[in-house]
Amino acid sequence: MKLTTKMIDIATREVLLNNEDARNIGVLAGDRVQIFNQTNGVSVAAFVDTTTSIISQGTVGIYRITNERLGVMEGESVEVRLADRPVSLQYIRKKMDGARLSKDETYSIIRDVVDDNLTPAELTAYITASYIHALDMDEVEHLTKAMVDTGERLTFHTHPIVDKHSIGGVPGNKITLLVVPILAASGLKIPKTSSRAITGAGGTADLMEVLAPVEFSAAEVQKMTLKVGGAIVWGGATNIAPADDRIILQEYPFRIDARGQMLASVMAKKYAVGADLVVIDIPVGTHAKVPNVQDGGKLAREFIELGERLNMRVECALTYGDSPVGRSIGPNLEVREALSILEGGEGPGSLIQKSIAIAGIALEMSGKAPRGGGSALANQILKNGEAHKKFMEIIEIQGGNARVKSTDILPGKYEFVVNAPASGYVVEMNNQSLISLARSAGAPHDRGAGILLHAKKGNRVEKGEPIFTIFAERNWRLQKAVEEGRRLMPVLVEGMLLDRVPHETKWE
Amino acid sequence: MKLTTKMIDIATREVLLNNEDARNIGVLAGDRVQIFNQTNGVSVAAFVDTTTSIISQGTVGIYRITNERLGVMEGESVEVRLADRPVSLQYIRKKMDGARLSKDETYSIIRDVVDDNLTPAELTAYITASYIHALDMDEVEHLTKAMVDTGERLTFHTHPIVDKHSIGGVPGNKITLLVVPILAASGLKIPKTSSRAITGAGGTADLMEVLAPVEFSAAEVQKMTLKVGGAIVWGGATNIAPADDRIILQEYPFRIDARGQMLASVMAKKYAVGADLVVIDIPVGTHAKVPNVQDGGKLAREFIELGERLNMRVECALTYGDSPVGRSIGPNLEVREALSILEGGEGPGSLIQKSIAIAGIALEMSGKAPRGGGSALANQILKNGEAHKKFMEIIEIQGGNARVKSTDILPGKYEFVVNAPASGYVVEMNNQSLISLARSAGAPHDRGAGILLHAKKGNRVEKGEPIFTIFAERNWRLQKAVEEGRRLMPVLVEGMLLDRVPHETKWE
Repeated sequence: MKLTTKMIDIATREVLLNNEDARNIGVLAGDRVQIFNQTNGVSVAAFVDTTTSIISQGTVGIYRITNERLGVMEGESVEVRLADRPVSLQYIRKKMDGARLSKDETYSIIRDVVDDNLTPAELTAYITASYIHALDMDEVEHLTKAMVDTGERLTFHTHPIVDKHSIGGVPGNKITLLVVPILAASGLKIPKTSSRAITGAGGTADLMEVLAPVEFSAAEVQKMTLKVGGAIVWGGATNIAPADDRIILQEYPFRIDARGQMLASVMAKKYAVGADLVVIDIPVGTHAKVPNVQDGGKLAREFIELGERLNMRVECALTYGDSPVGRSIGPNLEVREALSILEGGEGPGSLIQKSIAIAGIALEMSGKAPRGGGSALANQILKNGEAHKKFMEIIEIQGGNARVKSTDILPGKYEFVVNAPASGYVVEMNNQSLISLARSAGAPHDRGAGILLHAKKGNRVEKGEPIFTIFAERNWRLQKAVEEGRRLMPVLVEGMLLDRVPHETKWE
Repeated sequence: MKLTTKMIDIATREVLLNNEDARNIGVLAGDRVQIFNQTNGVSVAAFVDTTTSIISQGTVGIYRITNERLGVMEGESVEVRLADRPVSLQYIRKKMDGARLSKDETYSIIRDVVDDNLTPAELTAYITASYIHALDMDEVEHLTKAMVDTGERLTFHTHPIVDKHSIGGVPGNKITLLVVPILAASGLKIPKTSSRAITGAGGTADLMEVLAPVEFSAAEVQKMTLKVGGAIVWGGATNIAPADDRIILQEYPFRIDARGQMLASVMAKKYAVGADLVVIDIPVGTHAKVPNVQDGGKLAREFIELGERLNMRVECALTYGDSPVGRSIGPNLEVREALSILEGGEGPGSLIQKSIAIAGIALEMSGKAPRGGGSALANQILKNGEAHKKFMEIIEIQGGNARVKSTDILPGKYEFVVNAPASGYVVEMNNQSLISLARSAGAPHDRGAGILLHAKKGNRVEKGEPIFTIFAERNWRLQKAVEEGRRLMPVLVEGMLLDRVPHETKWE
């Protein structure tokens, strides 16, 4: 059916049809139509909303995101038809039925994900089926390559290209802000794409954005890396492995991180930036994603095998994941802590040790340091100021202020100090609760929101001494976090009263 | 955040926020907010769309479906907050992980489905997980009861109440139009709720709508049944087991019909209308939903067991499902065929035999006929005109024309006759292809579209004799169906050339 376009400033990938036109085309609200722009030959799929008044018969409302690819002008006419059922739905069904998917089938699904031909519900069915019927290594390899081939890539003519990744789950893990400058200062090239927080209190991209812009195209990342040796950008803006971002978004409501998809997700991003050497940080602990060293070792071997299939050398570091890294959680607090260490200030041992250990592995893999000498070299680069100098270059090339000092970065002005209710040792520090608290206080959106830990697991505290401070930019956020803190009790001191059970007679 | 409402005539359950307000609330497009109408105390969840221009800061656009429950007036203010994550997501995750769900957990999910607290993607995850980790009979029972308890019910004070259901998959299965009048004419009560076609060429509700309105509330269905003994209505309008309709809609893209959900779906509807005696028609055949008698028997035993748990007596009929029932597919053609039989005209044996067999089982179960004498009684009621008289009463009470004749119901004016390309026996008749063809021709939306079969499986046809006719209301639809017919070849005559493979040398 030929319809005249009317632009509608709503940020979704939909179109708005008059009820009558929808009926004639044979679609209901939520169905998929194909829209042809005969002027430029472009055709896109979009989902249908219906109205009886906003759009009259003969007109189609084109929402903003739909027009990003369609590119029609208001008043031009387009052809609107019932869309064919995407062929990839058959393959999703096949996965639901427990079958292995071939390379072509996986590519078909991922292409439809990137082209927005699948509804969130259809993509969720694929994710759920792949979560339950775990992907084998062939399927993971195909998924990784499909994610890479449907997005942008970097191509470097000098080698090696180094990359690092942490699989996450530990709050305060700002080590990228130290590792990238150390490696770039050593002469290696590390084009680091990072994520924004989805479930966390601040992804590396959220942290870096405190200091400089982080949204760059793939080509810009390549150029900056060639110039100063490294960059720390938000992966979402580069269009590198875009299918992965969509998959992660759909996994979010269920808090799942399916093994196969996680392997593919991490390695697609490394492969697409042209990495030769990759260090993967796998935090292990009761409150981390990987509960014990056995599982960590198994996951490490899978990363290594997948790396071999993709011609990347991978080494993994199992790290301590039962407590936050360093003493800060939340963008500004974490950036201040990292910056202060780069400036030569004192810093928490956990953060410095972990950073030079991870950087050290990459230095050894690349031959910059002898086997066993990596972390010493990393420490030297950190201590002699070269890493700091390099970080300032990176900040500058990304458009930030290269004269920034750690003392310039301030936490939110509202704070609440939590004191030890009893004397004793800190026996428990719950990652999930700390993250939840920092998020309640406003992190990562409010950059100044977060948590500063005054004591860590195993420390002795005296009654009335501060254990941690909650910071917020807005008072109601602070109140909300304080309330939640009372409920979650993220830090436990032995001898603390956990709960009081009132006397009550129960008949069952 | 307090915002002023503005009504927006778009038929979805969403709200439209200015980008800035969305950011302040802490949501992105696609996230869920909770909206409180302080005037009437109602609170509903809705999904967020964002705009930079249509809605200014301080205002929230309320879409039509959102306001059906919220009930605000334009210009009133509402409180909009980030919605809590529905607790039922945890249970969906639990099912993804392969665990059995408790009664409470199942109720929590189904309540959120009915209250629209889950996104289509979240519901799809539940469906996919339940498809892969098949529900056990306890879970099916809980699901059935949850579906019943979250919707309307009928309560009859006279018994027995009879019901029938066909699990579908066979085109042309218009037997309800014969079975309901036969049973009602016998003095039994049968409040039949039916579905519209989702994947088929016409659901029973689509057929009945040719003759009378089919959208009634549960209370109206009860009243009509008490008055004339039966009704044939669209279940969707009754709000009986509304969760089921939403589940079916999400299953549609994958063409799945998960065993547990199917059992619950069928039996919830029978339970909710207060049925005591239920006959289930299970078509068996290569192209039907159930491929063989063994599987049919197993499914039958599950229906019977579930019936026992719900205090309903269930009998199942395994029927021949490899060919269409009767000779017509598509609303008008099917209605004409059924009406003609009721009027005492000649009709295909397959349709008459199946109808009196199914009606006969119910007559025996209710004691109206002795064991073994049900189909004879059904045939008598059909032949002596009582069924026809009863059907006219049903049509009349539903608001249709009680003087309608089969000859009044006409197929679409565009037709294309497919002739036998060779002499021989009809060896194959593909249900799926026939349905697909009828849909291409416009069924069920175009009531006159469909297929009339002149020969059936096993019949001998001579070269040039008509095998079937395609009817359509619009010429382009007819052309599309003819094209598809060439490709699908739904009816095969032995000796027909299936395909011609051109000579071609291939190097592999």
